[in-house]
Order: sequence, then C-alpha cells, then structure tokens
Amino acid sequence: MKEQIISYQQLHDFTHSVFIGMGCSNKDALLATKTLLSADIRGIDSHGVARLSGYVRLWDTKRINATPNIQVTYETPSTAVVDGDAGLGLVVAPYAMQVAIEKAKNVGTGWVSVKNSNHFGIAGVHAMMALEYDMIGIAMTNASALVAPTFSIEKMLGTNPIAVAIPAGNQPPFVADFATTTASNGKLEILQRKNADTPLGWVQDNLGNETTDAHALKKQGSMLPLGSDRDHGSHKGYALGSIVDIFSAVLSGASYGPWAPPFPAYVPMPENMPGVGLGHFFGAMRIDAFRPAEEFKFHIDNWITRFREAIPSEGNEKVLIPGDPEREMEAIRMIEGIPIVESVVNDLKVVGERFGVVLF
Amino acid sequence: MKEQIISYQQLHDFTHSVFIGMGCSNKDALLATKTLLSADIRGIDSHGVARLSGYVRLWDTKRINATPNIQVTYETPSTAVVDGDAGLGLVVAPYAMQVAIEKAKNVGTGWVSVKNSNHFGIAGVHAMMALEYDMIGIAMTNASALVAPTFSIEKMLGTNPIAVAIPAGNQPPFVADFATTTASNGKLEILQRKNADTPLGWVQDNLGNETTDAHALKKQGSMLPLGSDRDHGSHKGYALGSIVDIFSAVLSGASYGPWAPPFPAYVPMPENMPGVGLGHFFGAMRIDAFRPAEEFKFHIDNWITRFREAIPSEGNEKVLIPGDPEREMEAIRMIEGIPIVESVVNDLKVVGERFGVVLF
Repeated sequence: MKEQIISYQQLHDFTHSVFIGMGCSNKDALLATKTLLSADIRGIDSHGVARLSGYVRLWDTKRINATPNIQVTYETPSTAVVDGDAGLGLVVAPYAMQVAIEKAKNVGTGWVSVKNSNHFGIAGVHAMMALEYDMIGIAMTNASALVAPTFSIEKMLGTNPIAVAIPAGNQPPFVADFATTTASNGKLEILQRKNADTPLGWVQDNLGNETTDAHALKKQGSMLPLGSDRDHGSHKGYALGSIVDIFSAVLSGASYGPWAPPFPAYVPMPENMPGVGLGHFFGAMRIDAFRPAEEFKFHIDNWITRFREAIPSEGNEKVLIPGDPEREMEAIRMIEGIPIVESVVNDLKVVGERFGVVLF
Repeated sequence: MKEQIISYQQLHDFTHSVFIGMGCSNKDALLATKTLLSADIRGIDSHGVARLSGYVRLWDTKRINATPNIQVTYETPSTAVVDGDAGLGLVVAPYAMQVAIEKAKNVGTGWVSVKNSNHFGIAGVHAMMALEYDMIGIAMTNASALVAPTFSIEKMLGTNPIAVAIPAGNQPPFVADFATTTASNGKLEILQRKNADTPLGWVQDNLGNETTDAHALKKQGSMLPLGSDRDHGSHKGYALGSIVDIFSAVLSGASYGPWAPPFPAYVPMPENMPGVGLGHFFGAMRIDAFRPAEEFKFHIDNWITRFREAIPSEGNEKVLIPGDPEREMEAIRMIEGIPIVESVVNDLKVVGERFGVVLF
C-alpha cells in the first residue's frame, strides 16, 4: 500500500482548520485535533485522521453539533452524568474526564457517565488525562453494534474498548487500551484493505461458522468477543463488552446495545432508540486516596521492572508492559512524521477542498 | 467420577462447625460458611467446600488468623484501604465490600482496596452484596501466580477474577464473574481429575509451546491469559489480569505479581515479598448517583430482554445473560442438594474427624 509521510504539525494544522471550518470554536477545534491525532501518533491509525471525513459527514447530516452546550445534568460528590449535546466525542470526552478528575480531587474518586455524544477517538488518551494528577484514569465507550454475543449471530455490541492508565514513578506509566473483541475493528480494516485473511477466531459468517474472511461483516457476519468461542472464554469478552455498554449508556441515558448510533453517516439511525446518542464512562482515582503517592509509585516501578524481567518465550525478545508499543511509536512519529495511506490522503484532500484548506 | 449428593444444610452445618473448630467467632464462622458455600450452590465447585481443607492447612501454618482485627487503615470520602489482619478472605471480603457500600451511600460510590487477606471464595458473591442496595457491585482479587504474560514462560499473575453485579427491575440481575484467563483454574482441575486433554489455548508448556496437557502446570508450564495468544488478544487478558493485580495489591499494600502468597500451605511463601498477604479490590456505585433508579431498572430490563432475544447461532438454543447459569444451578441445588466428588467427601471426613464433626 502506498503511503505518504506527513509531519505531526502539518496534520495538526490541517485538522484544526477542518474543525474550524465545521464551525467549532478555536478552543474546541484545538482540543478535537489533539485528541484525534493522539491516535495517529500512537500508531492506532484506524482511529485518527482516517476518520476525519467521517466526522464531517456526521456533521453534514446534523448528527454532530459543532457548538454544543456540554453540561453536567446530574451529580453526587463522586459521580456525574454529562450531556454532550451531540458534540464531537473528541471534545465531550475530555470535558467529562475533567469532571471526573475534579470529583477525585474532592472525595478521592470521580465517575462520569456520558450521554448524547459521538465517537471519542482512542480511549487511552482520555484515561491518560488522569496521570498528571497522580490519578488512575479509566475510559470506555460503547459503539455501533458489530459484535455477536456468545451463541449468537446477531450484532448486538460495539467493539466497546476499555482503557486504564496507571501512573508510575521513574518508569513510564502503565496504559492499557483495548477493544473487548478478539481483534479491534481497526486491525480488521487493515486486512480488508490488503485483501488478506484474518486468523480464525476474529469473525464469524452469517450462520455463526468460523471464517477467515476479513470482509465477513459485509456479508451479514459479525465480530467475535475477546476469547473467540465459548471454549476459549468468549463469554468473558461478551460480558466485558456488555459492562462497557451498560456503564457508558444505560447509566447515562445514551442509546445502548444494537441501538447505539452508527459511525458511518450513510447508515440510518436505528429505530426506537432507547436513549440519546453514544455513551462513554470515565473514572479517576487519586492514588493517595489509597496510600501515599510516593509509596505507590515505588511499588508500581517495582511491578513494572519485575514484569519487564519476566523470562521471554523462545522467539520473543522481551515482555511488554501495556502502553510500551504506543509510547515507542509516538517517540518515532513525532520526529519522523506519520505515514498516511494513499486512500486516506486522497480522502483528506477532498475534505480540505471543501473547506478551502490545503493538506500540503 | 463418583459423587455424593449432600444437602445445603448438611454442608452448611459441617462447614460452620469446622470454622468454629478453627477458633472463629460464631458470627465469622457463619459468614465464612455462607461465602464459601455460595460457590457450591452456584456450581463453581472448585471454589467451595473443596477448598475447606486448604483453609484449615493455611490456619495450621499460621497463615490464616481465625480471630482477626479487620480494620480500615486509610480513607477518603469515597475510598478506603482495609487491613485484613491475615483473616479468612471469606470474612475480610464482605467486611470490605460493606465499607464500599457505606461510602457509596454517602458520596455516590465507594472503592476499597484490601491487604493482608487470603483467598476470598468466588468474586461474584461479594459483588452481589451491592444489589440489595440498588448499587452496582464490583469485586476482584489477586491470587498466586499461575499465568504467564504474553511473550513469556514465567508465571507472573494469578487467574485474577473480576466480578460485576448490576441490579435489574423485573429481570434477574446481571452478574458477570470470570477469571482473566482463557479458562479458570477450576475448569483445568476438572480435566486433571478426569485425565482429559484441554482445548489448545488454555495452557502452554515450559518452553511456551501450545499443549493440551491438563497437567502442564506441574511440568513448569503455565496458564494463558484470556485470548490465549497474541493473535487472539492474549495481551488484553494479560492487561486485565495486571489491572486486577495492581488495583488489589499495589493500591493496598498487599503482595503482588509473582510474590502473591500461594494457596497451598505446602508451597513456601515467596522470598522478599513487597507487601502483606493477598489483595482484593471492591467497588459499589449507587445507580441513583447517575439517574433515578426506576429509570435505570426499566432500561436494564429492556437491555436484558433484548439480549435474550438475540438470534442464536445454529445448535444453540438461546443467548445467555451473565449470571444465568449460576442462578439456574442455585435453584436446582438448593432443592436437590449438591453433588460432591468422592475425593472431596473423603477430604472433608478427615477434616471433620480432626474437629470432632461428622459430615453425615
């Protein structure tokens, strides 16, 4: 696949101008840009600028409100519900995570469920907001239904990711960020573009048979929960995806399960939606709400160091700590630039023309 | 395998007497019995009376304190650390979960990390304590290391289960309770007793090769994180198990990772333990800290009903909601009694003789 290397700054200025073109305030456009591109610099190419034209199309169909009035609509000392007013999830999510952080400052932890939002980019970047406050950050979101529960052929859940960011001392932080499916939709899309097969256990066909067809979703197939099948624990992945759906959408009043709003603007909204928009869930826990921060950091450093020293299996160089690959990618891409596949470059150019913005 | 059917009441009276024989107060003995047997009645046979003699041996070696002074040693309005004083986890865990519930009553949510504890039975029963308060309950625990991280052959994590219990309205509650491994150690033990093979993906041999040998753990093999291998998302299971370890033990000051204390009393304690005893983590979230309870229950009922109606795949009768199998088992076993395999019956008789208690 042909790619072009584009610098972070170029991508940043372009994306910022597009959000301004949509009518976002400068503050929101900057925040949305930073959030969106955090995916590209961390190597999660499916969730970054590749989705920019998708956001624009959702704005075109009035499913995204560029000037939302985001607000807390319900709260207790440690909890809140945030109404995103159909804003960009890229802006709504940092707002809600900040509410969680403020609550944690006051009472030790903060937990915020969000309704009436849209796709929020990568979960990890929101969870990581907690790190600078010496807090553990948690972020999750529901998403349009692509995943069949164990024993089913019906798409009922999104890939519903969970992210947990844990501060360390001298070590880099622990940052887990993963879809609750065997493989993320982004990884599946890469194989679709290459016309390559998937490993068995990622998707099933329309009858629930195992298949390696990366295009199975277009043929009434579905993605599989983490674990792949019942023998390998798919009921656990199904439970995890369900918990994300319930915390994100049933707690807040967003639309849940098979009624979650679709990301592609050409897909009609589900009928009889039981809630408003997409849902997210955020948590922040002050580490010194449990033990002195320095003590905790000493032990997390010890934990990380010990796991790095775990004996690797043959053919593997080392054991990784969650967040290692993304951090290493970020260090490279901030210097060397970000490779963007040609189809995305062309897509961006079309978006740019519309708003009178030049990519490069 | 030969089994004997024993009524709940018989098992209850026997177990209660054994805990009394160990020197527990009557209140603690009743609580420990109820907690332990909740595993047997819910069909999780590996975590119930089958472990009673193990608890007795830990008490023999003074790793379990029958008369602990369990107390909160650190707290904020929404958090606490509980020191279990080496008590039975079966007693420490309900204490700590109650602390979480009381905090949730006051500020919306409560989060408690526990140190200096022991094996707490099944996670689900602790999470379910929240249900009667119209709260979501969360429970997790670390455990002695049996699981190798992705890319490793070294046992670094326990099977570290997560349980989440969510109250419903007219429907029974949603209760997920699962090890963060492909298969629980209990399921592995069943195959060991039958001398049967495991499916590929449950365990690896001492070199990290895939194997179907249910006895692999005795030959320097290890259990695999949920996902089985990197292609099928084992890094996600590894991350989940790590999060459970950190929330349960690094937040509280318990011993973590490969230093978690072993359950079998004959296994020496790890050297240079970085914390005290086993760790747990509990959470309680008032549903009306997010939206009115009746509204939430209406939508959870709708969620559950819709998922029950998801189209089953061929050969499968219906889609299950987490907690269905255990609840159905409980209804049967409370009436028909609990089948106990002969080796466990014999084991219990030996324990009984020691304390002058007759099983039946």
